Amino acid sequence: MQTLLERDSGLSAWIEGRSPSFLHAILNPDSIAIIGASADPTKRGYTAVLGLVEAGYQGRIYPVNPRLDTLLGVPAVATLDDIPEPVDLALICTPATTLPGILADCGRLGVKGAIILAAGFRETGEAGELLEARVLEVARQGNVRIIGPNTSGMFNLHKRVNLLALEAVRPGGVGVVSQSGNMLLALAMEAEHNGFVGFSTYVGPGNQTDVDFTDYLQYLGEDPNTKVAVLYVEGFRNGREFLDVARQITPRKPVVVYKSGSTEVGKKSAASHTGALAGSYEMAVDLLRQAGVSVVHSSDQILPVADGLALLDKAHGRRIAIIADGGGQATIAADRIVEAGLRLAELSQSTRDRLAEVLLPQASLANPVDVAGTSDTNPEVLAQCVEIVAKDESVDAIMLVGMFGGYHIRFDHSLLGAEIRCAASMIAFASQSDVPLVVHSIYAERRPSALQLLRQAGMPVMASIEYGVEVLRTLSERGVFLNRIRQPAPMPAVEPDLSMQAVFRRAIKEGRDLLEFEGKNLLRTHGVQVAHELVVRKPTELQKAIDQFGDEPLVMKVISRDILHKSDAGGVKLNLVGLEALERAYDQIMIGAKQYNPEADIHGVLIAPMARPGVEVIVGVVQDPVFGPVMMVGLGGIFVEVMKDVAFRAIPLTRYDAYGMLEQLKGRQVLEGVRGQPPVDKDALVDLIMKVASIVESYPDIAEVDLNPVILYPDGYAVVDARVITRKDDDALNNDSGTKKDDGIKSDGAPKALLQE
Amino acid sequence: MQTLLERDSGLSAWIEGRSPSFLHAILNPDSIAIIGASADPTKRGYTAVLGLVEAGYQGRIYPVNPRLDTLLGVPAVATLDDIPEPVDLALICTPATTLPGILADCGRLGVKGAIILAAGFRETGEAGELLEARVLEVARQGNVRIIGPNTSGMFNLHKRVNLLALEAVRPGGVGVVSQSGNMLLALAMEAEHNGFVGFSTYVGPGNQTDVDFTDYLQYLGEDPNTKVAVLYVEGFRNGREFLDVARQITPRKPVVVYKSGSTEVGKKSAASHTGALAGSYEMAVDLLRQAGVSVVHSSDQILPVADGLALLDKAHGRRIAIIADGGGQATIAADRIVEAGLRLAELSQSTRDRLAEVLLPQASLANPVDVAGTSDTNPEVLAQCVEIVAKDESVDAIMLVGMFGGYHIRFDHSLLGAEIRCAASMIAFASQSDVPLVVHSIYAERRPSALQLLRQAGMPVMASIEYGVEVLRTLSERGVFLNRIRQPAPMPAVEPDLSMQAVFRRAIKEGRDLLEFEGKNLLRTHGVQVAHELVVRKPTELQKAIDQFGDEPLVMKVISRDILHKSDAGGVKLNLVGLEALERAYDQIMIGAKQYNPEADIHGVLIAPMARPGVEVIVGVVQDPVFGPVMMVGLGGIFVEVMKDVAFRAIPLTRYDAYGMLEQLKGRQVLEGVRGQPPVDKDALVDLIMKVASIVESYPDIAEVDLNPVILYPDGYAVVDARVITRKDDDALNNDSGTKKDDGIKSDGAPKALLQE
Repeated sequence: MQTLLERDSGLSAWIEGRSPSFLHAILNPDSIAIIGASADPTKRGYTAVLGLVEAGYQGRIYPVNPRLDTLLGVPAVATLDDIPEPVDLALICTPATTLPGILADCGRLGVKGAIILAAGFRETGEAGELLEARVLEVARQGNVRIIGPNTSGMFNLHKRVNLLALEAVRPGGVGVVSQSGNMLLALAMEAEHNGFVGFSTYVGPGNQTDVDFTDYLQYLGEDPNTKVAVLYVEGFRNGREFLDVARQITPRKPVVVYKSGSTEVGKKSAASHTGALAGSYEMAVDLLRQAGVSVVHSSDQILPVADGLALLDKAHGRRIAIIADGGGQATIAADRIVEAGLRLAELSQSTRDRLAEVLLPQASLANPVDVAGTSDTNPEVLAQCVEIVAKDESVDAIMLVGMFGGYHIRFDHSLLGAEIRCAASMIAFASQSDVPLVVHSIYAERRPSALQLLRQAGMPVMASIEYGVEVLRTLSERGVFLNRIRQPAPMPAVEPDLSMQAVFRRAIKEGRDLLEFEGKNLLRTHGVQVAHELVVRKPTELQKAIDQFGDEPLVMKVISRDILHKSDAGGVKLNLVGLEALERAYDQIMIGAKQYNPEADIHGVLIAPMARPGVEVIVGVVQDPVFGPVMMVGLGGIFVEVMKDVAFRAIPLTRYDAYGMLEQLKGRQVLEGVRGQPPVDKDALVDLIMKVASIVESYPDIAEVDLNPVILYPDGYAVVDARVITRKDDDALNNDSGTKKDDGIKSDGAPKALLQE
Repeated sequence: MQTLLERDSGLSAWIEGRSPSFLHAILNPDSIAIIGASADPTKRGYTAVLGLVEAGYQGRIYPVNPRLDTLLGVPAVATLDDIPEPVDLALICTPATTLPGILADCGRLGVKGAIILAAGFRETGEAGELLEARVLEVARQGNVRIIGPNTSGMFNLHKRVNLLALEAVRPGGVGVVSQSGNMLLALAMEAEHNGFVGFSTYVGPGNQTDVDFTDYLQYLGEDPNTKVAVLYVEGFRNGREFLDVARQITPRKPVVVYKSGSTEVGKKSAASHTGALAGSYEMAVDLLRQAGVSVVHSSDQILPVADGLALLDKAHGRRIAIIADGGGQATIAADRIVEAGLRLAELSQSTRDRLAEVLLPQASLANPVDVAGTSDTNPEVLAQCVEIVAKDESVDAIMLVGMFGGYHIRFDHSLLGAEIRCAASMIAFASQSDVPLVVHSIYAERRPSALQLLRQAGMPVMASIEYGVEVLRTLSERGVFLNRIRQPAPMPAVEPDLSMQAVFRRAIKEGRDLLEFEGKNLLRTHGVQVAHELVVRKPTELQKAIDQFGDEPLVMKVISRDILHKSDAGGVKLNLVGLEALERAYDQIMIGAKQYNPEADIHGVLIAPMARPGVEVIVGVVQDPVFGPVMMVGLGGIFVEVMKDVAFRAIPLTRYDAYGMLEQLKGRQVLEGVRGQPPVDKDALVDLIMKVASIVESYPDIAEVDLNPVILYPDGYAVVDARVITRKDDDALNNDSGTKKDDGIKSDGAPKALLQE
């Protein structure tokens, strides 16, 4: 099977644990059956055949309809059984209820893949859900892979397969998978307007009943005609698997994702703070970026970014030089660049000296470079500036901003020749330099010749400064990603401890989570710095606390599996000094706990010195139903609760990822020290993050971890409270990348799937 | 003079304190001299005449050049003195150094206004600055108003004056003042591409030596051809005056501002926390919005927003209904709407019932309404949906999203008739309804007939969902603004207190700010709730604190004009209980203060009970050099310092403004109560804000106020620390709206002006 697919696709397997995509044969079909072919020009059974004929499809077409002899000059067959070969692809245009029967026929005929256009499945309720399950069952029995149902269809322009009969799309390097057919149409219209962007394959994944985003991504990754993969995603079915595949594709090919549902509000109840914050749009974006995916937040920017990445691939870093022919737009570009998290390159003195040689005295030589009229009579100076600036070691990418291409329109037609020579110089530059150049022009919409030349030579030309900056942002983000994965940084393994495994077994048997001291023991066992503390089970043992901690102010906390919110039960007493204070606190805690829950099983109290003040953070892990184990870090207290200032990474993660989480926090300045405080020990925090991730990997019984707060100091940290939630039997979580896809059938691909499960 | 201008402009004065704009005569000239006219087609002295001739200008043109007989068929004159009338406008194309002489000639001839294209003034250094001052002086002597210098020029398309010789611009309602000539070009290209947007007047303000943004804004406000005023601003010369004029124009006409320099970093040293945070881009945006200006943050959105406001003016509120023909784009629109601070309207059951009558069963009837294929064969249903939804009282504006206009392209050409009928219905709807409708279409760039019809009827049609939402945001913001100014809410006046005035006089005479207890007395005098406290000047008086406060824990703070940072000098002691503790603290404070600054003049100590814990905020006032007195409110501590989560309003302000500041804070949830805390007393905080603003208005000696922290409680608040900075003689602050413009000559219109002064 694998060798056949390898032969089909001309590709050897390069995605770990997966054969080359089975979709190559289906999406590059040599034969296509149109089931439900129709002579009615408003029906998909007509337009699909029209699309094939008009595109000049070279394979065999079989319109299936007992009432037709031919359709658009193509001989029709009455039934599937009349087709003389096992076709690669069947497009099924008939209603939902006909599907089980038709798919059985497809299986018998040896059809490799079927596109099901019909709606009326799980999205309509229970009966539809049953029908969908039945369809999948029949397809599996017959070895037919399903695209859809409820899909807008597919095209493969390089194969001249255009089942959408979409006009005015040209073959090119942009592969698209979109859960919205309108989004594809919008991209097609934008590409038509741009005039240079073309497409490879489009698929609408529909309900993802069988084939899902991961499969399509793998196909686009392997497809030699696809230079950039673009995905419009409402919901992932198996996000963990998607990330695994994405992580292997992004080093070779840019992947652009627009994820909808950015303002959806999670409504689940959660067992931990971390749990309450996970599952968000922001989490999905963090995890996708961790896997090297370029996430765009504005749908307008999907096509410019995809095009830019396809043409330029990457910038080596974040330092941008701006060359402009006017101060106003230079400032706009600079504002957007800094807002995007990029930096303005600091040009060296020798670069400035060389610029001074070619520019008028009133030019501004610092970045942004403003040629201040030099180009109005001598447009070629812009190419000179580009070359000079590109040689500066502090420059990772260049943006040209202003009127280039339109000087002959605005000033004097005689400038046309100079503009074309300038374009030629820029093209020569781009062919040798690894410093990407993004050209913005006020005149881009008019497509003057100099800009046409640039575009034909594969240089992006933008009518919008804002889009140009988004292209630079993604180029730079991709470059930084590619640099970092060159140095692999595996997560250190943690050897599970036998006695801790026993603690888990006991807790799970009792249907409870780890008690606070058990969780802290787990952490201590594996080298995490947890504050010293003492478990005391009766008042007569309180003297031990004095013996151990002296007259330091102490904190006392109730230990009970039945008391989740200790403070609410009066179960936390602070600042206790001396035996008498401890005894009084102990009595109060016992009384409070019994009042709070008379049935509560009280294990004892935990006594520890009050933590020194420092910077509070929260470190947590959740088992996300879509993405599996995910690490979360945030600044403590109000920062987490009000500002939702947290960062996520999928586990396993690298130290680079961990540092990236800290850099990403809006309140990161707190870690650097505010109000005269010294900076905290970020290395120690990263150690903690890595250790917690490793512990979670080594103990499959862990469902969630919530270290809140962890107090950071200039040297080291202290874990002050720790909750470790165990996996109960009813946690049917889809966290295993080896999980069968059938598990995902519950999630419906709708935007809410990510949040509500 | 005023009556003459009134006759000229056909307008009576409606801006308080100002005559109708003197610019009407200059920017609608009946006669124009081109000084430095040229036969060289690359020179502005040629293109300006060309622009006039080609536009069919009906007034008199006088090219001035002794070496020309005629230019482009227009008779030339040798010198200004040869012109037989006092011309309305002179365009001066000659170099900077010729200007004093030429302006003297202009004055003698009675020229009303002169546009100076030349650069080479203050932007080039000291010599240029002197030249510019000289030019202004000569112009003032001759009663010539100056546009520029260093301007790109002007056009008035309704008067057929096109001194830029800009091609392909059409007359229309968008008036533009732009400190960037390239920005005008970009807007012109976008308008050309749009095909429907036209311009009234453009002016480049250049160095604003004489005429400034305020003057141009007043002109555009009064100009009957201008439906919307658009300003690209790098720096204001007199922001306070600009706000005063804007506040009077925005109720009648939308004003759109793009302010550059959003990422400039303030570098000044500041005497207060408030001072350090003021002067930012964010402050300018807050003050402009307070005055009813529509501020856009992306330069791409300037034209769509201006066009949308010109066409639709306002929405009554923030509740938006989306009608879409596909779920994907409906979700995108919903995400952007919520991100923009708008709300998705909740459709009533009767609205849903009526929608169900016209839509297919699979349609989604909740907002966003997804017609789910109903329109694919019956586009007219979209107009029905619009009418049904517009009647719902919960809907303030409607956005139509998807393929409208392109159904006949995508599906079947026979749908064209239905699309045109649908457009006709929508036009009929729009003519009667005050619920604005923004139409997005994937096919907008192709301009199919249905969309052309909508656009011709004055309905905005957008190719971008994101821009459409920005139009809705500004429409709604404007509607909310117009609603609120209907209920005037003047600031209560505060009668200055004689003894407090004496305190100010003494402090200023001694060259110092108010001491903490003096500042608090000022607040107390005017009814602000300040914690009880006691000034103690020698240790023997400490018993008074015990007498007054008993055994409450107390705080002691040093009082000294020479110790700015009390904590650094060991000058703050907390949690003091009993006389002995007070005596010890007193001694320590005196020793610490003397160590910190042996020369320090110690006034005594302030003793007060420790404040109850609550929510800390900062309330401050600065005298901004550009915008005058400005109120700032922020959440205390790290929120202010790290997140810069503050809001600004110009003083005077209304209670509405004050509440708006609280609503605008990102951490506003803290005021509502987090972690089980009750909400704070927002009304009391607003009382405090209003009171502080009134005090600042009544005591002109106040330069800055910094109440940090103010602690908020469920009932009331306590001002815990108060700094009142006095105006010293060297504070040459431009805070008075009556200030002569000459004061502004220092600020150079560059983006940094706002921040560095």
